[in-house]
Amino acid sequence: MLARIRRAAEAAGVQILDFEADPDHNRSVLTLAGDAEPLLSAVQRTMTVAVDTIDLTRHQGTHPRIGAVDVVPFVPLDDTPMEEAVALAHRLGAWAGTQLGLPVFFYEAAALHADRRNLADVRRGQFEGLAVRLGKHPPDVGPAAPHPLAGAVAIGARRPLIAFNVYLTTDDLAIARAVARAVRASSGGLPGVKALAMDTRRSRGQVQVSMNLVDYPTTPLPIVLERVRAESRARGTDVASTELVGLMPAQAVEDVMQHYIALQDFRWHRVLEAALREGDWDERG
Amino acid sequence: MLARIRRAAEAAGVQILDFEADPDHNRSVLTLAGDAEPLLSAVQRTMTVAVDTIDLTRHQGTHPRIGAVDVVPFVPLDDTPMEEAVALAHRLGAWAGTQLGLPVFFYEAAALHADRRNLADVRRGQFEGLAVRLGKHPPDVGPAAPHPLAGAVAIGARRPLIAFNVYLTTDDLAIARAVARAVRASSGGLPGVKALAMDTRRSRGQVQVSMNLVDYPTTPLPIVLERVRAESRARGTDVASTELVGLMPAQAVEDVMQHYIALQDFRWHRVLEAALREGDWDERG
Repeated sequence: MLARIRRAAEAAGVQILDFEADPDHNRSVLTLAGDAEPLLSAVQRTMTVAVDTIDLTRHQGTHPRIGAVDVVPFVPLDDTPMEEAVALAHRLGAWAGTQLGLPVFFYEAAALHADRRNLADVRRGQFEGLAVRLGKHPPDVGPAAPHPLAGAVAIGARRPLIAFNVYLTTDDLAIARAVARAVRASSGGLPGVKALAMDTRRSRGQVQVSMNLVDYPTTPLPIVLERVRAESRARGTDVASTELVGLMPAQAVEDVMQHYIALQDFRWHRVLEAALREGDWDERG
Repeated sequence: MLARIRRAAEAAGVQILDFEADPDHNRSVLTLAGDAEPLLSAVQRTMTVAVDTIDLTRHQGTHPRIGAVDVVPFVPLDDTPMEEAVALAHRLGAWAGTQLGLPVFFYEAAALHADRRNLADVRRGQFEGLAVRLGKHPPDVGPAAPHPLAGAVAIGARRPLIAFNVYLTTDDLAIARAVARAVRASSGGLPGVKALAMDTRRSRGQVQVSMNLVDYPTTPLPIVLERVRAESRARGTDVASTELVGLMPAQAVEDVMQHYIALQDFRWHRVLEAALREGDWDERG
């Protein structure tokens, strides 16, 4: 099935940047890059295959989700204005509502309602709670009832984020919950940090704090990791290992070099492999 | 003068990866990449300008040097065999001896004599000691007397290395010397680490441990930094900051992520900017 989804994403002018499957989360992340029109077409074909092949009534996983295609974020790169990403999100939503029969929630910069800006709010009640929820509040576009097997979809536009998971050296889920609560912005933790405890005991024998760093210029990755470490140690446990979901911006590598190596002048094109692909030094300035 | 040197390096098929000038070392590092023929031609033109414009009899700097063009290392990238780099080094040496009138020492993989493999041995006595030294032992090619203003040149072929300097929070040069001695391979320290104390007190108010990590797969950068930190603390000082000279291989970034972030699955193409330039994910495997 994952191979079919990947093939559906292949299109002229679209790059497959990354494709990962997490068995605990029971969730795959596909990262595509391209110009607006080929990108929209590749996403449409991918969504069509996912809706045709994934049955959410039989799906279990530790990560919250509302549909076979849980979420589609458009991220403007380089000089692309956010408005273009918002316009693509709205075009994709209109298509998904009419062609796939999916209720669509627009979130973050693409949100039409203030209480749907935050993806965590959009996911509340998950797939299983959709019918009741849609009965009270209609979606932004698409039918007012969930697709029977594929649920609904959140479509958004946002800046890049870092999806970063930390495993703790404990199987005590209450500790992961307490650490997540201590670091996340919504309960008074670090600005731009979203955090959830995940039960990854079956596969790892350890619990996980799963995070999105949505404002890593304000709260860089090393600050988040060291706070998680301190909060874990205060509860008698520690950081076991970490993992990255999807891709990390070069800014995060620079932040790590600055924080741990005290390397003042590091920029990512100081990496040989990057410099070889970046063109001449004097054009980089 | 540096602008003239850079312009001389510009040639079709050659990329200027990096160009840096260090005022304490009074030394510039130019990193070029390209296929053999355009690369050889760009290096020849650069050396011609340097020999024409730099007067070593009036040169001072903290870093050891034997000539206006102190050293030219050829580094084979990707699948290029070391033999090709050695062949280029020997062609450049023959040209520099006859056309520029420079005594040439071949070092590392290009060495013709075992006692010239190590660049530090080739530099012993520096520019000022060349006349006496060449009187006893002729160079590998070129005249048996130094060029009056431009000295001699070391030309080699080697694997990539990491040139990494650490500033200490002290102005005590004896401590930098002791730390350098403790970490360098030649006095029983870490494998593949070369280290020298540098007097950078005038510009920084701090001393420097200047290192080459010539076998970073065996002794990764974080291991070296933590050893320098421990040796410094044992002497009542600490690491103030670090700096990279030239470029760093992606392997070093992966080592840093592994060591400090405990990030198990990190590869360089997990950086967004790298993935965008690397082609499709499934071709990377």
